[in-house]
Amino acid sequence: MSDLFKVYTPSEARTVFYQQFCMPSLKKEIVCLQQSLGRVLAQDVQAPENIPAFDRSSMDGYAVRAQDTFGASESLPAYLIPAGEILMGEEAQKPVHAQQAIYIPTGGMLPPDADAVVMKEYTTLVGDDLLEVVKSVGPGENVVKAGDDVGKGQVVLSEGHTIRSQDLGAFASLGIVEAAVYERPRIAIISTGDELVSPEKQVKVGQVRDINAYTLYAQVMEAGGMPVHMGIVRDNFAELKGKMTEALQEYDMVLISGGSSVGTRDVTVEVLESLGEPGVLVHGVSVSPGKPTIMAISQNKPVFGLPGHPVAAMTIFDLFVEEIICKLQGKQEKGLGRKSLKGELTRNVPSSPGREDYLRVAITAENGTFQVHPILGKSGLIFTMVKAQGIVKIPIERAGLEKGEQVTVRLF
Amino acid sequence: MSDLFKVYTPSEARTVFYQQFCMPSLKKEIVCLQQSLGRVLAQDVQAPENIPAFDRSSMDGYAVRAQDTFGASESLPAYLIPAGEILMGEEAQKPVHAQQAIYIPTGGMLPPDADAVVMKEYTTLVGDDLLEVVKSVGPGENVVKAGDDVGKGQVVLSEGHTIRSQDLGAFASLGIVEAAVYERPRIAIISTGDELVSPEKQVKVGQVRDINAYTLYAQVMEAGGMPVHMGIVRDNFAELKGKMTEALQEYDMVLISGGSSVGTRDVTVEVLESLGEPGVLVHGVSVSPGKPTIMAISQNKPVFGLPGHPVAAMTIFDLFVEEIICKLQGKQEKGLGRKSLKGELTRNVPSSPGREDYLRVAITAENGTFQVHPILGKSGLIFTMVKAQGIVKIPIERAGLEKGEQVTVRLF
Repeated sequence: MSDLFKVYTPSEARTVFYQQFCMPSLKKEIVCLQQSLGRVLAQDVQAPENIPAFDRSSMDGYAVRAQDTFGASESLPAYLIPAGEILMGEEAQKPVHAQQAIYIPTGGMLPPDADAVVMKEYTTLVGDDLLEVVKSVGPGENVVKAGDDVGKGQVVLSEGHTIRSQDLGAFASLGIVEAAVYERPRIAIISTGDELVSPEKQVKVGQVRDINAYTLYAQVMEAGGMPVHMGIVRDNFAELKGKMTEALQEYDMVLISGGSSVGTRDVTVEVLESLGEPGVLVHGVSVSPGKPTIMAISQNKPVFGLPGHPVAAMTIFDLFVEEIICKLQGKQEKGLGRKSLKGELTRNVPSSPGREDYLRVAITAENGTFQVHPILGKSGLIFTMVKAQGIVKIPIERAGLEKGEQVTVRLF
Repeated sequence: MSDLFKVYTPSEARTVFYQQFCMPSLKKEIVCLQQSLGRVLAQDVQAPENIPAFDRSSMDGYAVRAQDTFGASESLPAYLIPAGEILMGEEAQKPVHAQQAIYIPTGGMLPPDADAVVMKEYTTLVGDDLLEVVKSVGPGENVVKAGDDVGKGQVVLSEGHTIRSQDLGAFASLGIVEAAVYERPRIAIISTGDELVSPEKQVKVGQVRDINAYTLYAQVMEAGGMPVHMGIVRDNFAELKGKMTEALQEYDMVLISGGSSVGTRDVTVEVLESLGEPGVLVHGVSVSPGKPTIMAISQNKPVFGLPGHPVAAMTIFDLFVEEIICKLQGKQEKGLGRKSLKGELTRNVPSSPGREDYLRVAITAENGTFQVHPILGKSGLIFTMVKAQGIVKIPIERAGLEKGEQVTVRLF
């Protein structure tokens, strides 16, 4: 059955998958501000009031009627009558009359009839009852008007926005202490393979520890999902089908971390085909490492059969799964940039045209430039990833990269 | 008292601070792997065994003695005797004798006396008892040797390393399911200012909501610390001193988010000077926004008096505080790169030489290049940060940036 499938390029695979993928309706929950960081807004946030709520001074100085200072200069100062002081956190009720000046701190409320603030630096008290002003101010100068930052009713943050540090501040400034966010998608992880054992157990000869359960767990967390490890399943149709049925009922997406043997993959495909339309959509992607990848939709939920090799599974997660987990939590924004750097490749790296290669690299800094060292390991085991600081993509049309070439490293 | 201090450049301020800063001895804790992501290793991790633990095949094929295939080709195949099959997860006990071939799956254990694997693609079964081999293999070919990835005793990850997804996999592959990590530093946040009220409360005219308590909370979390908000303190020596004394006893670092008025800053300085040597080290940094910054060490703990303006407080956090929180959790690695992009500035932005300016910017993509739009707001309130996607630094020696200039935006 698996032979019926052609190997797709990554972009073809994405197209085939999203043609069949229907966004589920997402559930919402209310969280307190402190727990909202990194979560995705489930509704627009409107300002319930003007910010600032009242006209405020943006300087330490004197609240005045601007026209009383017109023409004032070092050589021809204006003289005003000091008429008290506004304290921080106090309502300014006493108006500023013509020719008066009331002392006001930064952030203080502008008194009635004042329309500007003269900075303290441009004033001198002459005795107790005269203020010399050596600079004129225009109406509105050194004043933040009510609603200048945000007007009442304005949409401050939109549905689908991922909440950042400053957004917590925006909520707080509006007196909002809870946020309606989308629930985190719950992602089931099933490990398959007769040779796999859980890492805390004693390993017999011929067995290997289940690594993917942990790397995928961490990747799901980093993508904003909630990982649930459902344990290790033998290469057996009935056992995998039972576990898949449970996973599809309970969770929003399923990652089957496959044994790398052909047998396991066949069982996975058979189980996915038995769970309803459309079933398997992609079986094989022209990516290295990561070719034996299965993309499916069962009961309207995305299911990925990931390669057994840990590095390949991580690569495919980065390439396809992370994006889906973002959609499943309602994220509307695409990241603008990635953590990356440019450097010089220190050796030739062959690759096959028609295949997208992802190269693990270590980085050293020499004479102000970065040297990018490919990490080659025939096993493709997890330690090549541990030694790496980032990944270089070899485009699908290239037959490799050359020593000395400038490459972009996507940093971990 | 505050007038005795000169305004330092950011690098001078850093030097003055670190000359007095002594690293405290960090506490360790044991966490399970699933909770170790992003934490910092408190000790070197050594491989307790070889990885892989036994010689394994890296291909589906036949385990052979390499010399039995020497010279084999399409035109002159070698003929071997099929002698059974190795199953995944099973110990291979039966040796391969001369002229024999045992079927082996990828990841299967190499049987005794075999030293190579012929890929299945280069073999044909002729009846039940003859295997035609059309390609010769050298010793070690398609085999991953025991210890090839990691030798027993080798340091796999070092003390001070921040644990990534792949590192969880490395732990799992070694059978390690717990990690010794440094405790997260606990960072006290004290808000000061007579005008401040907690965001959930009704705001009276003349009052403003405490924004910094939330933005700093989020920034501390992002930096890997554990934030503790100790509430709002009035501009009062005794009250602030009481709170500070409590904070210095309980927590690893204190952030005082100051009212922006001169009065509050003076109280903060007085309290810090009363709590023991060396006290205030820096009072004023040539950064905009963020000039009224206090850096101090009290009872061997770092204390920052941050500006009251939320954007200024966030900027100073980024510039100085994040780095200290990293040190307080034992991080040994410096980040190699930042999430950034280059784009074209869409207008002139003035700045004062002798001051480092941090400009909030929005970004649009046009014709394949990024347009970088400065967000100007006289109030410096939090909504300028909310509208921004990143920050552009105007270097200390520049008198501004020019329209059309290529700038690097540090993305949020």
